[in-house]
Amino acid sequence: MATGDTDKEASDVSKEEAAGLANMSPPVALCALYLTAITIGTLLLSMPFAQSQPVDLGDAFFTSVSATTVTGLTVVATGESYTLFGEAVIAVLMQVGGLGLIVFAYPLIAFLNENDGGAKVSLLQTELGRPNVRGIGKIARKVILVALIVQTVGAAILALHWVPQEGWYGVWRSVFHSIAAFNNAGFDLQGNSFQDYTDLPQVTLPLAALFIMGGLGWLVLLELGNLRSGKGLSVHSRLMLASTLVLLAAGMLMFAATEWSNPATLGGLADDGERLVAALFQSATTRTAGFATLDFGAMRQETGFASTVLMFIGAGVGSTGGGVKVTTAAIVLLATIAFFRHHREPSVFGHTITREKLFAALAALCASGMIVVTGVFALMLTQDAGFEALMFEAVSAFGTVGLSQGATGALDRVGQAIVMALMFAGRVSPLFLAYFLMAPKHAPDCEGSAHIHIG
Amino acid sequence: MATGDTDKEASDVSKEEAAGLANMSPPVALCALYLTAITIGTLLLSMPFAQSQPVDLGDAFFTSVSATTVTGLTVVATGESYTLFGEAVIAVLMQVGGLGLIVFAYPLIAFLNENDGGAKVSLLQTELGRPNVRGIGKIARKVILVALIVQTVGAAILALHWVPQEGWYGVWRSVFHSIAAFNNAGFDLQGNSFQDYTDLPQVTLPLAALFIMGGLGWLVLLELGNLRSGKGLSVHSRLMLASTLVLLAAGMLMFAATEWSNPATLGGLADDGERLVAALFQSATTRTAGFATLDFGAMRQETGFASTVLMFIGAGVGSTGGGVKVTTAAIVLLATIAFFRHHREPSVFGHTITREKLFAALAALCASGMIVVTGVFALMLTQDAGFEALMFEAVSAFGTVGLSQGATGALDRVGQAIVMALMFAGRVSPLFLAYFLMAPKHAPDCEGSAHIHIG
Ligand SMILES: [K+]
Ligand SMILES: [K+]
Repeated sequence: MATGDTDKEASDVSKEEAAGLANMSPPVALCALYLTAITIGTLLLSMPFAQSQPVDLGDAFFTSVSATTVTGLTVVATGESYTLFGEAVIAVLMQVGGLGLIVFAYPLIAFLNENDGGAKVSLLQTELGRPNVRGIGKIARKVILVALIVQTVGAAILALHWVPQEGWYGVWRSVFHSIAAFNNAGFDLQGNSFQDYTDLPQVTLPLAALFIMGGLGWLVLLELGNLRSGKGLSVHSRLMLASTLVLLAAGMLMFAATEWSNPATLGGLADDGERLVAALFQSATTRTAGFATLDFGAMRQETGFASTVLMFIGAGVGSTGGGVKVTTAAIVLLATIAFFRHHREPSVFGHTITREKLFAALAALCASGMIVVTGVFALMLTQDAGFEALMFEAVSAFGTVGLSQGATGALDRVGQAIVMALMFAGRVSPLFLAYFLMAPKHAPDCEGSAHIHIG
Repeated sequence: MATGDTDKEASDVSKEEAAGLANMSPPVALCALYLTAITIGTLLLSMPFAQSQPVDLGDAFFTSVSATTVTGLTVVATGESYTLFGEAVIAVLMQVGGLGLIVFAYPLIAFLNENDGGAKVSLLQTELGRPNVRGIGKIARKVILVALIVQTVGAAILALHWVPQEGWYGVWRSVFHSIAAFNNAGFDLQGNSFQDYTDLPQVTLPLAALFIMGGLGWLVLLELGNLRSGKGLSVHSRLMLASTLVLLAAGMLMFAATEWSNPATLGGLADDGERLVAALFQSATTRTAGFATLDFGAMRQETGFASTVLMFIGAGVGSTGGGVKVTTAAIVLLATIAFFRHHREPSVFGHTITREKLFAALAALCASGMIVVTGVFALMLTQDAGFEALMFEAVSAFGTVGLSQGATGALDRVGQAIVMALMFAGRVSPLFLAYFLMAPKHAPDCEGSAHIHIG
């Protein structure tokens, strides 16, 4: 009983905290909070003691947006331009930006919906498979705990390599990259990402494990953690894990097939083992992490194009990654296959995918596509770089990936503004979708159904 | 009564004719028929008396595929390489390919479905809003009649310009381009399309009228013809006409905005009026007709990119054009807007768009996208040309548009095969979709609905 009361109190306090935001719709509130983090980050990064070489306000702003949206595109080299304090600010922004959406978004929706009436919160609970708002608060705390444990373990493993080499700075390098990896944020202190680490699997494999875990999403992570209790995996988690495996394998095959003989990338590595590890790493990182062991500017154009597709797909729902999300892409693909197999409705693992989900997936795909197309067009109108590099840049920004074929540094202020807008849209769009998915629907005032011919 | 009997007989004869195809599914039967037309075309174009300069078998094959799929991509200049006989073969192939799908596909589905049972044909009749198979046969005859009348009038108007200049050959030039225009087939006898005709609206405007009409689709054309009878327009026709106007205006604005100051295109024209007409013509032609009054190889890269979007959208259902179709794109856009407006279902002009339509639209979009992405990737893997030109080429082929930034001539045999496959897929895909839309659906064997998170 005592425990129950304490929980209730905690819940009431949290409700009060959220009350100030209650007049905003949840997506607007989330945007406001991200903008606040970005502003604070910009101010801190503009302080002289944050900079080891001069960084102007515009570049500090870009860095703050890139870190808070966990993208990792950079206009100045992080390690060279910022002091330890500046780097710590970036690490905090990555943590806030990466975990913020996860631990904050769902409770926020729940709180605001509860203020608004019971019907909606129960819809949310169905989505989450959890009993009540208090439960959601518990989940948030659990997610933070899991994230911190995983990052600590990751940093410790990385420290085994870096501390013997660099002493105390090796500790910081391990912590920074563990945070960057789990949050799929793509920032690095080396200046050329991990291009000098192709022969060091003791660094690249822990990094890959961290960003793959971060990219699965907390729903999947918590279920995996509960496996021992015999609960089994939900359809969502099974679809997410299966799709991730397929994407990892397909991406690895693609990188190997297109770059094996390219002396500037895989072809330049020492042996086949190193090539395979690099292909796997690149397959994993391209969907959203943004680390690179290979030079994307030197890759063949077909690799760049296929990478664009991977970047657009992105990572998991409720993860630290971006893109239209793996399960969205999987649902669209399953629906297409089902349509051409004469199925009335698509299904996955013996469960139907409802029309509501298809409606939302279509909206997510179309909205994302239009944002990217508009971004690419705007970049081409205003920037001098080539189509290939600008398209890569736009998709990388919207997918909060952070890979670049080299266009970022050549952007003028207008180009930087477009890329910042794409990064921001890419990071907050999942909450917009979640909100519109859960919000109450009203039927349009219609005479009947329209006979419209398609295809 | 006598009339009724005659119709019944005609219907029985047609049924017998179709019986041989009855063991094939309709899409396979249509593919077989297109392949037959392509084969006959290739043989005829390979005859010495069809050629005024040597054309090898591979190039004749490519020409036949391009004409039958009403695309208009060419590896040899039509006017220079083929005799009047060869040009006539191309004209017949364009006519068969353009009208074939329209007048043949729907009756074929109806006949085959009727052999199969009554339930499906009534579904088809709902789609067409017509009472029975006999009615569909009548529609087919009406469509052919309308097409021939429009093409004759078009040729007569074009002859007013060309006959005074060229005498008898002017008659042929008028007939050929009227056929090419109405069928959105993109072939021309000049060798550089209509780049020398920017100051001749008496040629370009009738051409634009022809290919816009051909691109609306027979459903819309027949309804427009019936307007006097006071029947009004269906939701499909209203959506198609409204969307076409929006696309024409948006495309014109886009071409004007991006190319106005480009001396190699609009900037090189004599005055603003000529520029506006050229921008309008290019807006209309890019979605599927494939004629060009401007050099697409000399356009800015942002124009090429925006053109790719227009080519992918394409023309109307049941039209001589390709692409994912205007109404498909419109439904997807309306659905996306409705989703973000909290509507339970999207609607258009006060009529709901059913979930079945959304399912089909999603499948159409996803399948088309995957075909194009695969095509672009295959071209990049095997051809030397740049990303921009190859992407343009692939979308142009799949959208059966026929515009090129110059890559067609540089394709090797493998590249030609990829482009031919894209053209073929682009032309027959609408029937596949129509068939799968109409075919009976079976429910998947499921336990319940899946809770999958998207976005
Ligand atoms: K990233
Ligand atoms: K065409």
